[in-house]
This record gives sequence, structure tokens and C-alpha cells, in this order.
Amino acid sequence: MSTNSLEALDSADALAPLRAQFDLPAGVTYLDGNSLGALPRAVREALNQTVDTEWGSDLIASWNKHRWIDLPVTVGEAIAPLVGAAPGQLVCCDSISVNLFKLLATALALRPGRRVILSQGDNFPTDLYMAQGLESLLGQQRCELRTASSDGLLEALDSDVAVMMLTEVNFRTGEKHDMRALTQAAHDAGALVLWDLAHSAGAMPVALDACNVDMAVGCGYKFFNGGPGAPAFLYLAKRHQNAVQQPLTGWMGHRNGFEFSPQYTPGVGVSQYLGGTPGVLGMRALQAALSLFESVSMSAVRDKSLALTETFMARVAEQPSLVAFKCLTPVSPEQRGSQVSLAHPEAFAISQALIDRGIIVDFRAPDIVRFGFAPLYNRFADVAKAVSVLEDVMESRHYEDPKYQVRAKVT
Amino acid sequence: MSTNSLEALDSADALAPLRAQFDLPAGVTYLDGNSLGALPRAVREALNQTVDTEWGSDLIASWNKHRWIDLPVTVGEAIAPLVGAAPGQLVCCDSISVNLFKLLATALALRPGRRVILSQGDNFPTDLYMAQGLESLLGQQRCELRTASSDGLLEALDSDVAVMMLTEVNFRTGEKHDMRALTQAAHDAGALVLWDLAHSAGAMPVALDACNVDMAVGCGYKFFNGGPGAPAFLYLAKRHQNAVQQPLTGWMGHRNGFEFSPQYTPGVGVSQYLGGTPGVLGMRALQAALSLFESVSMSAVRDKSLALTETFMARVAEQPSLVAFKCLTPVSPEQRGSQVSLAHPEAFAISQALIDRGIIVDFRAPDIVRFGFAPLYNRFADVAKAVSVLEDVMESRHYEDPKYQVRAKVT
Repeated sequence: MSTNSLEALDSADALAPLRAQFDLPAGVTYLDGNSLGALPRAVREALNQTVDTEWGSDLIASWNKHRWIDLPVTVGEAIAPLVGAAPGQLVCCDSISVNLFKLLATALALRPGRRVILSQGDNFPTDLYMAQGLESLLGQQRCELRTASSDGLLEALDSDVAVMMLTEVNFRTGEKHDMRALTQAAHDAGALVLWDLAHSAGAMPVALDACNVDMAVGCGYKFFNGGPGAPAFLYLAKRHQNAVQQPLTGWMGHRNGFEFSPQYTPGVGVSQYLGGTPGVLGMRALQAALSLFESVSMSAVRDKSLALTETFMARVAEQPSLVAFKCLTPVSPEQRGSQVSLAHPEAFAISQALIDRGIIVDFRAPDIVRFGFAPLYNRFADVAKAVSVLEDVMESRHYEDPKYQVRAKVT
Repeated sequence: MSTNSLEALDSADALAPLRAQFDLPAGVTYLDGNSLGALPRAVREALNQTVDTEWGSDLIASWNKHRWIDLPVTVGEAIAPLVGAAPGQLVCCDSISVNLFKLLATALALRPGRRVILSQGDNFPTDLYMAQGLESLLGQQRCELRTASSDGLLEALDSDVAVMMLTEVNFRTGEKHDMRALTQAAHDAGALVLWDLAHSAGAMPVALDACNVDMAVGCGYKFFNGGPGAPAFLYLAKRHQNAVQQPLTGWMGHRNGFEFSPQYTPGVGVSQYLGGTPGVLGMRALQAALSLFESVSMSAVRDKSLALTETFMARVAEQPSLVAFKCLTPVSPEQRGSQVSLAHPEAFAISQALIDRGIIVDFRAPDIVRFGFAPLYNRFADVAKAVSVLEDVMESRHYEDPKYQVRAKVT
């Protein structure tokens, strides 16, 4: 495929005008929106309003006047349609890690007599860690993390499994699970499912209700572009609400927190899953970022995402200089997310050389260069540029420069 | 004391110039900094820099380049000297509620064979709720919340108590505990202490190390002026670090999170207490707000705080029209924080009438009007104004207007 034909794809792209709603630095091809989404211009205005008018002028009255107190629900309900959730099941709060803890404990309580959390051995580490933390706290008589490979999940789904916790799109490989089939399999085995949508929410349609999902968590700072460390979200299907009490029982989850009763009474519905005072600045930024999704359909987002990744994979495959890369991301559209992961023994140095040349990717240990495609602002021209620079880095062997071996704290 | 003499106090106030570093709305006397601190002007610039340069231009590279990844420690270390903590014991993260959970679980693990969390029955509700949540999760064989009145704490400190969890300054009455004596008493009984500094940090010197405190939590959005829902902080004394593992084992608390190992290994020292990705916007705002404390001593802050509250109490006491108010805040300086709490059967309506007239206070159920004094920006003139408007509201009985009975969600 020629560069000309990619220009034609950009010209025909119905989502192309959205790029103008982001601030993107000149001279940079940003392919790391799956790690930190770019800055939507609407965020700046929303933050100025929040700081100047709400905090600065209206001060404490803003909790009512500007409905700060409702933000976890308001922002949650803005996310809900983007992940296929009817109202009343999703709140925005805390981090994915903390939300996983609340939901895993909930799952164990909903499945008395079962003690196993089943997950994938190469799930995102914090998901495994939070299960390990719960296991350590409760003891293995009450909670045990069991891991399996992607292929071994069904076999591992026995009558001890309380909940199967999976990330829909694998952070290393970009491989996408079949949410509907795996949820059904877990239910057939009497287990619940907890889906981590970190690499899917905002990049593709997610059908939580239609797939009969029990629980989910997701991220505000990747494809939702909510800013660094944006608050996360949490979904609990209506049928499971109010049946048990989650353990992080903070005052915002109380049925009537401003009665200041000494006795905790869980709030009705998913509001029970709130805890501490919501971080208003982070929530306002995420809320403004989500407004960009009001004018697009998630299926159009998905179509463009697949076209970007497919184009990238095809061009990489046809370049003789890139033959040393092994593509870990499935070719089949229904099996991949919105990234392409290329494995190479020198992946770290190659990723640094790319970044040095304005192609912002990231490295994932031990040997992966990740190219993330954010359909709201990435162009087919970015695909062309990335492949061209990658060819240059490989042909010139620039990545062998010792300076590209220096590792920073965050990789 | 005449208004003139209060003007003299303002003229002589060495902290008076700090007020100009805050944005405060015209025509308003803000006495609710103990609930939400006012907006420091430095925050606006810091947020613009974070959004435009860091997020907008440098994007993902900012985790290293602008040291976002270190913010929980950097901001923690900025707080540490303000609460009497040597380096390496304090991190900024999550909410007070979530941090309490981590520390309460730590305390139980540090005191095997003891299962009681002792607290005060009128402690801030979320503190009690988090203990109740842990109790529900672990069962009463492993964890039980016991409450006592302020006077009954010493008697309740028996050999079952693993940790005594107290808030230094009571949110309702403004009564301040003797941190040193109560910590010693707990240690004498073989228990640990966990102090909540929500209403003391930023308003007075706190001597965590010198008092031999084991654990503490505190708030970023009250006297530290970090903005609505600013991240909280957590202190764990060096001697207790690395002895046990806390339960909310997120990837930021891993010894080397960016190795992406499937197995959790706790980070060294207090860094183990981090969990999810830090909320950068909220941390940057708090960091900027804390810069205002660089030029002041906490003892000067305390002196002014006591002078403000003393002046207010004295003027209220001498007004015949205010005789129906019962002052719940101790007259003795060493027994009070930085607020004055006046009880009255019509407290709710009175607080609304005051707010309507530009005196921003808050109501605490069932019958308290809270007047919070923030020494960095409140003036003695604010004291005069508040008392004068309160007199007017009471003499005119304006508070009897039915509109002042309407309760909003947040009170």
C-alpha cells in the first residue's frame, strides 16, 4: 500500500476532524495513547472553570452548586453507554487497583463456598497483585489466586472458582478475548466474571450488559484521554447490587454520609462502592475528555482502529528490513485490540531510537515494542510515518547506539 | 475588644501578607477552610504547566522527564516536615479512607494475637466505617472495632487492643487530643496508634516522630489548600516498615513495578503503601499549594490560629444576643484546634442565614455551626465581621425564614 493510498484513507476518514480537538505537539507521531491519551482541548477550559469559578469563587458551596458530590455518578454515567452499561451500574472512583479489591471481595462474598480467583498468568500485573493482596489478607482457606494461560482458562474453571478476572485486551500482545463466550463459560461453571477494560474502553464497543458481565473495571487515562492518573471506573451489574457489602466502606459509600452516623450503612446500588472524597480536578478533566465521545459511535471508532492496526501490520510485514520483528498481535480483527506489538531482542533500544526520532511508542519487558493507535486522533499518515522511521532505524542500525540502552524509571 | 483593636492585630500579623497569595471572592468571609481550603494562586500556574507542557507536549515521557512517577514521594516529603516526620515515612496517595484501611490491616499484622481497633465513638465517621469494613471482611475473631468516649479511652486500652485510632482534632467540637500522652498510653498497653490529622495538619505543628507515633493519615484539601478531593497522605514510622505487607498491593507499591512481574514483591519502606497510578493533576495542585508553607513556621501558624479562635470565642461570649449558643470548643489553647463550634437548636438554619450573608461556615449534625479559621488567609477582621453578622442574624431572627430550612445534599 502506497503513502498515497494512506492519504486517501485519511481523506475518507469520518473521524478525522476529531484530531483538531486535541493538542498534539508538532513533529511528533504519538502512538502511545494506550498508555496516556493525548490532551483534549476541552480539558483546559473545564479545569479553568473548575479552579477559577468553582473552587476559587464558590468554594465549599460547589459541592452542591456545581454538583461535585455527584461527579462519581455523573462521570460514571457518561462512561456507561460507551461500555454497553445501562444506567445505575457504573461509578467513577479511585484507581483500577483499589476498585479490583472491592469487586474481588464482593465476588467471594457472592459465591460462598468458592474461594478461587481465576486469572491469566500474563494479565496486567496490578490485577494479579491485588488478588495476591486479598489472598494474603484472607488466607488461602478463603481466597486463592489461580492463574492459567489464555488457552487453559476453560479447563481451570472448576467448582472452586468464585470469579474469573480477565483483561479484555492483553497489554503486552494486544490480543483480545471473546468476552461473551468466556463470560458464558464462567457462568456455566457457576463463577462470576470481572473484566478489566483498561485497553478496550474508548477504543471499541464493549457490551457489558449484553454479554451478561457481572463486574468490570476500567481506566480513565488511556483511550478516554482523561489525563495522567485520571480516576478509574467500576461496574457492578444491577442483579448483584445490595446483595453483599464491599470492604472499603468509606463515607461516600454510606447511604447518607452527611448524617455523620457512627454506623456504616451501605448506599443503595453501585454507590456503595464509593469511599473517600472524590478528586474533583481529575474527575472534571475526565468528564471534559469524555465529551468528545458524544459525537461518535463506538463502532466507527472500532472500524478506524482496526483499519489503522491492519494497515500497520500489513506494511510491517511487507518490508524486508523489518523481517526480524515477530508480530505478537493477532491478524484476525475479532482477536485484537487497538495496538500492535512487535517482538525483537533489541526491543528496548529500538523503542528508544524511535522515540528519539519522534515516534512515541513504548517498550514492554522483555522484548516488545508497542504501537498504540488511538482512533480519535491517530491518522493513517501516522502509520506511514511510523513504518518509515522504523525501517530507517533498523536499516541504519541506529538502535545500536549505546545511549539507547539507558533505562529510566518508567519504561 | 473593639474592632479597632482587631485592626491592630491584623496590622501586627506577620502572616498577613500570605492572604494575597490566595484568590478569595469579594464580599465573602470564608470560615470553612477546615472543610475546603481556599485557592492558592500558585495552583493555577502549576496546573497550566502540568496540562500544557507536561501532558500536552511531553505526553507519556513526563512520567520520567517531569518526574510524575515520583510525585507520591515528592509531595509526601513536602508534607513530612509540616507534621514532624523525618524523610522516608510519608507518601501522598489515595483518600484518607483507603489509607486507613491499609494502615489498620498493617496494625493488626504488627500485633498478632490482638484484634481490637480502639477508637472514639464520635470520631469522624469514615474512620469508624473503614474499621467496620475491615471487621466485616476479616470477621470478629480477627478484627473488632471498639469505641469509647474521649474520657473512656484509657480504660478501654486493654491487652486485646492492636491499635488506637484517633483524630487529633475532633471535627465536630474542635477539641484537640494530647497526642504525646495518648500515644504513650497506647504503647504502655502494648498497642499502636494511628492518628488522623485531617483537622490538624497545616493548622498547627504536629510532632509525629517526637511523639513516637506509629501511623498517621491526613488530608490534602483542608488546611493544606490542595483543592477539592486532593489526594491524602499516609505516614508509617520507619521502625514498622517492611515488617509486614499491607493488603492493597497495587503495582505502584511493587519493588519494581515496571518489570511487570506476575508476582507481587512489596516496595522498600513506605513506598509499599502506594497502589494505583497516581492522579497527577490533583498531586500537582497540592504540591503548588504546599509551597506556601515554605516561608512560614508552623508555630507562627499555630499562634495566629489560637489568637483567631480565642478572639472569636471571647467576642461571642460577651454579646448578650449570642447567649443561646453553647461553645463546644475548649477554652484552653492546648485543647483546641483551629475551629470554634457553637451549638444551637437552630444551628442548621443559622448556618444557612450566615452563608446567605457572606459568612461561609458549615453545619454539622445535629446542632453545630462550625467556624473554621485558616491562619494563612483569615484575618482578625474576619472574626469581627463574623460576630457582627451572627449578632444581626440572631437579633433579627432572620434564621427563622423557612427558606433556611431547605437541606441540600452536602451539608
